[in-house]
Amino acid sequence: MNSITNDIKIIKNETSKINEVDFENLTFGNTFTDHMLICDYRNGAWEQPVIKAYEPFTIDPSAKVFHYGQAIFEGMKAYKDENDDVWLFRPDENHLRFNKSAVRMAMPEIPESIFIDGLKTLLNIEKDWVKFGNGNSLYIRPFMIAIGSGVIAQPSSQYRFMIILSPAKSYYSGEVKVIIAEHFSRAANGGIGAAKAAGNYSAQFYPTKLANEQGFQQIIWTDDATHTKLEEAGTMNVFFRIGDTLLTAPTSERILDGVTRKSVLDIAKRDNIATEVRPVLVEELVAAAKNGTLKEIFGAGTAAVINPIVGFSFRDEYFELPKLENSFALEIKEKLNNIQYKLAEDTFNWTVKV
Amino acid sequence: MNSITNDIKIIKNETSKINEVDFENLTFGNTFTDHMLICDYRNGAWEQPVIKAYEPFTIDPSAKVFHYGQAIFEGMKAYKDENDDVWLFRPDENHLRFNKSAVRMAMPEIPESIFIDGLKTLLNIEKDWVKFGNGNSLYIRPFMIAIGSGVIAQPSSQYRFMIILSPAKSYYSGEVKVIIAEHFSRAANGGIGAAKAAGNYSAQFYPTKLANEQGFQQIIWTDDATHTKLEEAGTMNVFFRIGDTLLTAPTSERILDGVTRKSVLDIAKRDNIATEVRPVLVEELVAAAKNGTLKEIFGAGTAAVINPIVGFSFRDEYFELPKLENSFALEIKEKLNNIQYKLAEDTFNWTVKV
Repeated sequence: MNSITNDIKIIKNETSKINEVDFENLTFGNTFTDHMLICDYRNGAWEQPVIKAYEPFTIDPSAKVFHYGQAIFEGMKAYKDENDDVWLFRPDENHLRFNKSAVRMAMPEIPESIFIDGLKTLLNIEKDWVKFGNGNSLYIRPFMIAIGSGVIAQPSSQYRFMIILSPAKSYYSGEVKVIIAEHFSRAANGGIGAAKAAGNYSAQFYPTKLANEQGFQQIIWTDDATHTKLEEAGTMNVFFRIGDTLLTAPTSERILDGVTRKSVLDIAKRDNIATEVRPVLVEELVAAAKNGTLKEIFGAGTAAVINPIVGFSFRDEYFELPKLENSFALEIKEKLNNIQYKLAEDTFNWTVKV
Repeated sequence: MNSITNDIKIIKNETSKINEVDFENLTFGNTFTDHMLICDYRNGAWEQPVIKAYEPFTIDPSAKVFHYGQAIFEGMKAYKDENDDVWLFRPDENHLRFNKSAVRMAMPEIPESIFIDGLKTLLNIEKDWVKFGNGNSLYIRPFMIAIGSGVIAQPSSQYRFMIILSPAKSYYSGEVKVIIAEHFSRAANGGIGAAKAAGNYSAQFYPTKLANEQGFQQIIWTDDATHTKLEEAGTMNVFFRIGDTLLTAPTSERILDGVTRKSVLDIAKRDNIATEVRPVLVEELVAAAKNGTLKEIFGAGTAAVINPIVGFSFRDEYFELPKLENSFALEIKEKLNNIQYKLAEDTFNWTVKV
């Protein structure tokens, strides 16, 4: 059955694989739903979005995404409440950031009618894939790639925007120990670190592999010029609790403006947790670890929401963090989860019903 | 007719489009030959390379190249001499650099038997696409992309290596005026600037667009921390002639180790042109332009070989370069071309017969 709703063409996938999926044993980002949204940009305009079966597509070997890396994405989640309604968390923030990334990568911005309305239409079709219950969510991956052909280093004239959906369980990555970057860097001043651009992620794989070999799961990146300022963890922003104050770096051209990061700050402020958004120095962290005032480090991002860190290494010295009764990380994570799952009042108006 | 030569499977394209191509009016990088080489990496090993018709391929929407930017490439050229023989220029340098890029991007290295032997086998099939005559060449684009699926920021376990070929005329980009970067940057210390990674190129598109709007064709990038050191031009390394000395920046983690760059240095040294490989300061360039000792600026890269620059802008001041009788750029370009086209003795043993 094909139909057109709100200018979105829908070609229903008549066979669903939902019954083949073991929702209790999902590995993150590997299972996809029955449909995807696809919308091409040609001749200076976005064409009609199409929702159709999730499947591979054909592309030219000279497509610019393969050679020059014009590719951006977002990460979002949909949650189900006890009334079987599906909710998004601050989707406008992701749409806004996607368009900021697009500008920085010389790609076309995408209108709300495609990004937001397209996503809602897709989620309505796939709502059975959003499971009720704490920890369950449907991970949403909107992305855009340059599909124009030609091996000359110039922006493409053709792009493809897609939304794919992947059911997820609560993200637990085990005990996370981090290493403070001293040589490698994630982003340059005046570079693309604040854009959610594909190239920012592959750049971290090799340094992360070296960190893994030393027994650390992730890297906390520092500024590339001096390696003295703590910046972000690559797929998460990072928070430090010194005494009873939560510290995090200001966003910049080098640091992604995370939606979870800003939500953590808002919840902390509302609930009278002292916060400081300012450059946090490596030496300050080491001193606090040594004098016992460093209580917590945690990452904040869409996939894990809040990811507590158990210790960090700097210049071959390892600092174990204390195990706390009153962890800010767990307290804020619960409050954030309760908003996302509609278990607590959403005083911020962050949630949007699909 | 299918055959296997040197472990390369060849599936001949029975229809050639060569007679439809206007070889006198080629735009760079838009026309491709009848065949391509394709070789996949799975389960920790490279599979058998296949030479087959140039055509689009299918790929999953969650392929890691689209989301995390694991993609590297090389640029090379094949030339034809008057005996109808086809020659490569320093192909081992490209193979070496490709593998260095692969390591930095956490991708598998590729053996000579696929990169070099595969390329030679492909060129033997496509030798009619390499046209005799100064300025004519066949541009070679080896590249590797992550084809493994899954929207989790980790290196792929599956990759695709391909070689595609594009006939080219002498690359003339018109008069090139450049602007010295003062805010945007190409690469971070400890970043991926020295790798020929896709993400490095799209990062430059937006700043280049802004430069274009001001009437400049390209940007000379400076170090991201201080913007005081002249680095490279993004698709070319850059040389400065002050007095009768050729200056260029040393390669680093931020600067691509260009094959044309090192060939220019070798020719200059052989022919008693003074060279200095050292950090070149913006203030030094401006001072030399003001006191009249700045004679030339030129870019060096595979596509254009040598690209003379007619003037540069720094902080809204434009400096026009003199028109010279004895241009180092043109002299070295001719010598390099003569080696590449086998019109002069190749004292360096740079050329390799296919």
